[in-house]
Amino acid sequence: MAARRRILTGDRPTGPLHIGHYVGSLSNRVQLQDAYECFFIVADVHTLTTRPEKHHLDALHDNIRQVVLDYLAVGIDPERSTIFVQSAIPETFELNTLLGMLVTVPRLERVPTVKEMAQHEHLDALPFGLLGYPVLQAADILLPRADLVPVGKDNESHLEVTREICRRFNKLYGPIFPEPGTLLGDVPSLLGTDGQAKMSKSLDNTIYLADDTATVQRRVMGMYTDPKRVRADIPGTVEGNPVFQYHDAFNPDAAEVADLKDRYRRGAVGDVEVKRKLARALNAFLEPIRERRAAYAADPERIEAIIDAGNAHMRRQAQETMAQVRAAMGLKFAAAAGALAGA
Amino acid sequence: MAARRRILTGDRPTGPLHIGHYVGSLSNRVQLQDAYECFFIVADVHTLTTRPEKHHLDALHDNIRQVVLDYLAVGIDPERSTIFVQSAIPETFELNTLLGMLVTVPRLERVPTVKEMAQHEHLDALPFGLLGYPVLQAADILLPRADLVPVGKDNESHLEVTREICRRFNKLYGPIFPEPGTLLGDVPSLLGTDGQAKMSKSLDNTIYLADDTATVQRRVMGMYTDPKRVRADIPGTVEGNPVFQYHDAFNPDAAEVADLKDRYRRGAVGDVEVKRKLARALNAFLEPIRERRAAYAADPERIEAIIDAGNAHMRRQAQETMAQVRAAMGLKFAAAAGALAGA
Repeated sequence: MAARRRILTGDRPTGPLHIGHYVGSLSNRVQLQDAYECFFIVADVHTLTTRPEKHHLDALHDNIRQVVLDYLAVGIDPERSTIFVQSAIPETFELNTLLGMLVTVPRLERVPTVKEMAQHEHLDALPFGLLGYPVLQAADILLPRADLVPVGKDNESHLEVTREICRRFNKLYGPIFPEPGTLLGDVPSLLGTDGQAKMSKSLDNTIYLADDTATVQRRVMGMYTDPKRVRADIPGTVEGNPVFQYHDAFNPDAAEVADLKDRYRRGAVGDVEVKRKLARALNAFLEPIRERRAAYAADPERIEAIIDAGNAHMRRQAQETMAQVRAAMGLKFAAAAGALAGA
Repeated sequence: MAARRRILTGDRPTGPLHIGHYVGSLSNRVQLQDAYECFFIVADVHTLTTRPEKHHLDALHDNIRQVVLDYLAVGIDPERSTIFVQSAIPETFELNTLLGMLVTVPRLERVPTVKEMAQHEHLDALPFGLLGYPVLQAADILLPRADLVPVGKDNESHLEVTREICRRFNKLYGPIFPEPGTLLGDVPSLLGTDGQAKMSKSLDNTIYLADDTATVQRRVMGMYTDPKRVRADIPGTVEGNPVFQYHDAFNPDAAEVADLKDRYRRGAVGDVEVKRKLARALNAFLEPIRERRAAYAADPERIEAIIDAGNAHMRRQAQETMAQVRAAMGLKFAAAAGALAGA
């Protein structure tokens, strides 16, 4: 069997994942496992760029576990794929420091998401590490020598920085890293339950993969729909309506969805029926995920073992890569120190 | 015996050290070994901030050896002090990445030496790693939890950044690091042999600690002196005259120096006599240094062993510190990875 091409992707562990993550990236990742060697990074160090405060860090360990539980629950297979925690791979820090020499400050200042993140802060409070976010991401991607990175629009500009740093490194020191390509597939995430463009914890407009049946029911029954339908007999708009976006994403009964849309447009169906059927479909979709999640959650030692095994596997890749990086750059004492580590 | 307070200081390995380094810092360091626990860093990663190109790195390993030879030759004692290579301590990279979250971009842009270094480049080519120079230096200083740093004027602004990062860390996560104080003692370095303010390889106005007798003789005889003394009977100026600055620094015969100055001011001595006596004094000063240097240089395995032992000792300090840092921050998986390192 030819070596499968490598993929690196992942999430910042800021809490459990929701159905927007599923539609936007998780379902794609589950498929990718067949054709690619996948590395899924739980990028805890990245959370420090915007949330270095202790109370955020206090939640970090649990957030990491929640993300890993969600990965396993949706069908990411630790036998085929590598799930690892960023901070557990010290080589990430080394490569991050070295790659930071190969990109300019103005280049990083032009990255749109850095600009955007910087605007949340006062500009004169922009942390050095936040400006360096795309460098740390480059280290994440180049360390396992990923061939491809699944990206949405948000991340394409980051990946471009990775490619520039990769080319600069290879030109200066020799062809160590494959230049990572873009894997199309990640799509814009689901609308929030309130009709906002994005699900987010702070907007309280999410349905988590871990939410129980009653919570999903309640969330769906409270969803935003077409506001001009004050009565069931007023014709409504399906397009951009989160209730129908969710039906399209999660209701496998295409005939039922087509019928609901048709009656909704004609003013021949009540919101309650549309939502009840969505809640039923969503709960049917979530039930096996919830079951797998509960089974894993009941066995914390197994979770730790899966994370440890993923960390160990990624660590070996990282050590191989850094041995090559050090040799290419001529950092001879660093290699000796690596050998010392277990002394 | 009470624990000695710790000092961290060192050099970027850009080549062998010269008598300006001796006057400016090395002689002070030799003395400090009695009262302090000294860590001397050969800061090779710092050279990447301005010299990432391969041909510079190709010289790095030899440059590191040259600096260590100079340290040993002047009397830095590897039995009492720790000489180590920055790139051999992976924890440096980790702490560097973490500390980068705790300082802002505008704060770093205000550091005078960063400004100055940035001016050598075009401003739009300022490397991210060069802007982060004071962060990496903070990691160097905080990793062994140094109490004191000997600084000249040049470095005081860097140390202020270290202190700010130290305070921020301790405030966010608990009192892990002592706030490093300034140790007065390092003085402005010697004038160049051409009378320029600073000795530097690129100006070719240096006398290296490793220069042989004939080279020192030739260098001294070609030194810049008071340019208005076109004949020996013209009164000359002693102040700011490098020949007399060197006499003050290296000629232990105070009576001879006083006599030379007196006659120089009166126009009663030739430059040749002043220089011959300087060359003799300088060679007498350098002879034991050269001998020790030659003895060490003849035994490359001993040098490697000294560096390895220093790296190993620093590494243990670094691992202790990072265990505390990770515990304070709550980076739980990182600790597990540390344990894995030798697996």
